[in-house]
Amino acid sequence: MTQTRDIAPEDQARHAQKMAKKKAARDRMMETKTGEKGLVIVHTGPGKGKSSSGFGMIMRCIAHGMPCAVVQFIKGAWDTGERRLLTGHFGDLCQFHAMGEGFTWETQDKSRDIAAAEAGWEKAKDLIRDPAIRMVLLDEVNIALRYGYLDAQAVLDFLAAEKPPMTHVVLTGRGAPEALVEAADLVTEMAMVKHPFRAGIKAQPGVEF
Amino acid sequence: MTQTRDIAPEDQARHAQKMAKKKAARDRMMETKTGEKGLVIVHTGPGKGKSSSGFGMIMRCIAHGMPCAVVQFIKGAWDTGERRLLTGHFGDLCQFHAMGEGFTWETQDKSRDIAAAEAGWEKAKDLIRDPAIRMVLLDEVNIALRYGYLDAQAVLDFLAAEKPPMTHVVLTGRGAPEALVEAADLVTEMAMVKHPFRAGIKAQPGVEF
Repeated sequence: MTQTRDIAPEDQARHAQKMAKKKAARDRMMETKTGEKGLVIVHTGPGKGKSSSGFGMIMRCIAHGMPCAVVQFIKGAWDTGERRLLTGHFGDLCQFHAMGEGFTWETQDKSRDIAAAEAGWEKAKDLIRDPAIRMVLLDEVNIALRYGYLDAQAVLDFLAAEKPPMTHVVLTGRGAPEALVEAADLVTEMAMVKHPFRAGIKAQPGVEF
Repeated sequence: MTQTRDIAPEDQARHAQKMAKKKAARDRMMETKTGEKGLVIVHTGPGKGKSSSGFGMIMRCIAHGMPCAVVQFIKGAWDTGERRLLTGHFGDLCQFHAMGEGFTWETQDKSRDIAAAEAGWEKAKDLIRDPAIRMVLLDEVNIALRYGYLDAQAVLDFLAAEKPPMTHVVLTGRGAPEALVEAADLVTEMAMVKHPFRAGIKAQPGVEF
């Protein structure tokens, strides 16, 4: 059992005063944040956490009873944890569409890759158009945009014209096009500081899938 | 309905050849990744996605039937989506302990903050020591380390000495200490490229909690 450290009363008082000031400043700042809006959210960069963070948000939506949907642009019939959990437990709140055919080096067929990306995007458009669906996760769609399998400008034009105002759309994958980053409301770049693949560790359940 | 674009046969063949080469190189590379290991995983940086990605991994563990646990070091009794979903649906597989008392500027009480951090860490140690638990998420623990409420070296010494070899421990929060980054197996820095708070948008359900 750790012993709680003794803190001198004057340190305690100084801390309380500093934090009271910080809270006041923060409260003033937060008072200006009153808007609600369906966000275009981008997770990009080479680091881990782009898809898992997207699925974390989908789980939060489910917890709040918000209908949501996932379209996977690369992963196909793979038995991933996210697929198993969403289809097995929450099919009533969250639609799950794995439209991918695998990585480009697996299919080795460019027209098949393009057809899969286009089919995924058609499905995505239907889901985004439905105002009852509050969040649509387009997992790995940035890969399809980067290879030019989908036209980035067409995707942005659609989002600008047809996304209902309160719907969140999350786009994940490396190499998000600059125009998408420009247009998005929330962009995080996952930077790889260290990755265990480099130490010979393979993809493991729970962590990567 | 999008029309599938025509691709010249020679382009198609070139693509197939290039991808076959890429696959061969990748297969050779992946053959060297055979290890399995319980990882120390760090999500840090100012960007969004540190906690949500941790919860995404917890969901993957649950999907694979792997017992897991969450200790929250800042969030207390807040009704977050993650708390609601995990305690409401998956209490049998995932323990959930919200040990926080709120942000430092909310408690305004340093000894109370330290006591909460220490209680969280005691709970974390019990969970990590149990080899049946396959992943332990220490949500926002980096904040407690950064303020010195927990001793980083003591945390690292414990992980080195007592973490079972196959247990994953995920530590999230800004400002992870350098020694933790050094010791970890997988480190991602979430960089903030753009955040909607700046545009006056408040924290929204599904996205932030």
